[in-house]
Amino acid sequence: MRNIKLVLSYDGTEYSGWERQRDFRTLQQTLEAAVESLTGEAANVVASGRTDAGVHAIGQVANFRTNCRHDCETIRRALNALMPDDVRVLEAIEVNELFHATYAAKGKLYRYVMYDGLVMDPVLRRYALHCHWPMNATAMHAEARELMGSHDFSSFETAGAPRESSVRTITHVAVFRDGPERIWNRQSAISHQPSAISDSPLLFLEVSANGFLYNMVRAIAGTLIDVGRGYRPAGCISEILKACDRRRAGPTAPPHGLFLVRVDY
Amino acid sequence: MRNIKLVLSYDGTEYSGWERQRDFRTLQQTLEAAVESLTGEAANVVASGRTDAGVHAIGQVANFRTNCRHDCETIRRALNALMPDDVRVLEAIEVNELFHATYAAKGKLYRYVMYDGLVMDPVLRRYALHCHWPMNATAMHAEARELMGSHDFSSFETAGAPRESSVRTITHVAVFRDGPERIWNRQSAISHQPSAISDSPLLFLEVSANGFLYNMVRAIAGTLIDVGRGYRPAGCISEILKACDRRRAGPTAPPHGLFLVRVDY
Repeated sequence: MRNIKLVLSYDGTEYSGWERQRDFRTLQQTLEAAVESLTGEAANVVASGRTDAGVHAIGQVANFRTNCRHDCETIRRALNALMPDDVRVLEAIEVNELFHATYAAKGKLYRYVMYDGLVMDPVLRRYALHCHWPMNATAMHAEARELMGSHDFSSFETAGAPRESSVRTITHVAVFRDGPERIWNRQSAISHQPSAISDSPLLFLEVSANGFLYNMVRAIAGTLIDVGRGYRPAGCISEILKACDRRRAGPTAPPHGLFLVRVDY
Repeated sequence: MRNIKLVLSYDGTEYSGWERQRDFRTLQQTLEAAVESLTGEAANVVASGRTDAGVHAIGQVANFRTNCRHDCETIRRALNALMPDDVRVLEAIEVNELFHATYAAKGKLYRYVMYDGLVMDPVLRRYALHCHWPMNATAMHAEARELMGSHDFSSFETAGAPRESSVRTITHVAVFRDGPERIWNRQSAISHQPSAISDSPLLFLEVSANGFLYNMVRAIAGTLIDVGRGYRPAGCISEILKACDRRRAGPTAPPHGLFLVRVDY
């Protein structure tokens, strides 16, 4: 059988997350219905990870197996024609039969978008969290940097998804202000400028890691928002990490600010 | 009575335009309901112009009269609290009793957003027209420049809105590629760079004039899209202008790419 890798972009607003569910509209079900309609075969579309309800993606990766003979460009165009316009196939590529979007993933980049302007922008309201207080991006960045490296992140893991280990390695983390064009950038802001340079009301939290625990980026975002508005002191992230206790960290930030930006293999 | 000027931003997707209608959700009705709820008075909120169904604004201006004693910052916050999040009051200012948002307007800036990337971006799908062909922005800009100055624009006016005169003066017009941050920019791109500099899939048509005929920017956009895809030759805009015949111009482009950017008084 052929193995087709897809790169996907979606607006998660109207979806109950990635994973197929009996009574809700999900991304997996939408993709699988389109693949089944195209190929006439039962489809199983597997993603790099299951994004939650309301979470967006500009570079999700998925794959499925098929016996159909359409070339990849035809598959890409046909799937887009068969799906609603809030989910798009950016690329379709035939890959080695061993490729598996979940298990082959070596790392992912997530971006959490915040907006601390006085009045929320209607065009951005589905894609950024409105923070009702001026945020100190410099303090947020300094705390975020304490997350770099390998740690037990169980303080930032929502219960209910037991894993063998809650140790993960964060390879890039930054908080900075930037313009709206950053929302669409598939590269991480490796050379993050000091936040004071920009007076944009948009703040970005970027986290790259070899893997993420359940709700990990949203728990980190919620904690750093506490830092940004002055509710938590310098040094708090190190203490929260050491505690290995979810109750020590901040709230899980809402899903609509979160983007899965890229998956590396 | 006090006279309150509002600067408004809205996502027009879910509205049947500005003007109050019996059976449809409109911006005027939404604003008036909020003002009535705040002041306890019957409200008449007048805008600089009536944007059509589906058209967005980042700098619409409106005004209303009231005897209420709230300060302007309270009015701004209260109206935002009383309205859905796809319409926002950016500013509320007390102005001279003679100010009228419609009649005092000296000029407006509209922006039409197009996207000619292969795959439409789900996040941009409500705010830019997907052009399914590569667009020649340089040719579009050259034709657009023929619109500069005072002309009878009846070739770009949808019938059904008789006016005393169809002569208007365009003071700025440009077509250029730029990043998504341009969507939010309230300034016109006076120093427009040659389009070839940028490889962004986003194209912008900007038009400033002392007034606009019904559907004028959308008719100009539809005609320039014909130019951009090679359907109309150089010089066509001058001929269309001279003809004073709506049938000579291109189709009225869809509303979701259009933004009212700014109103000058």
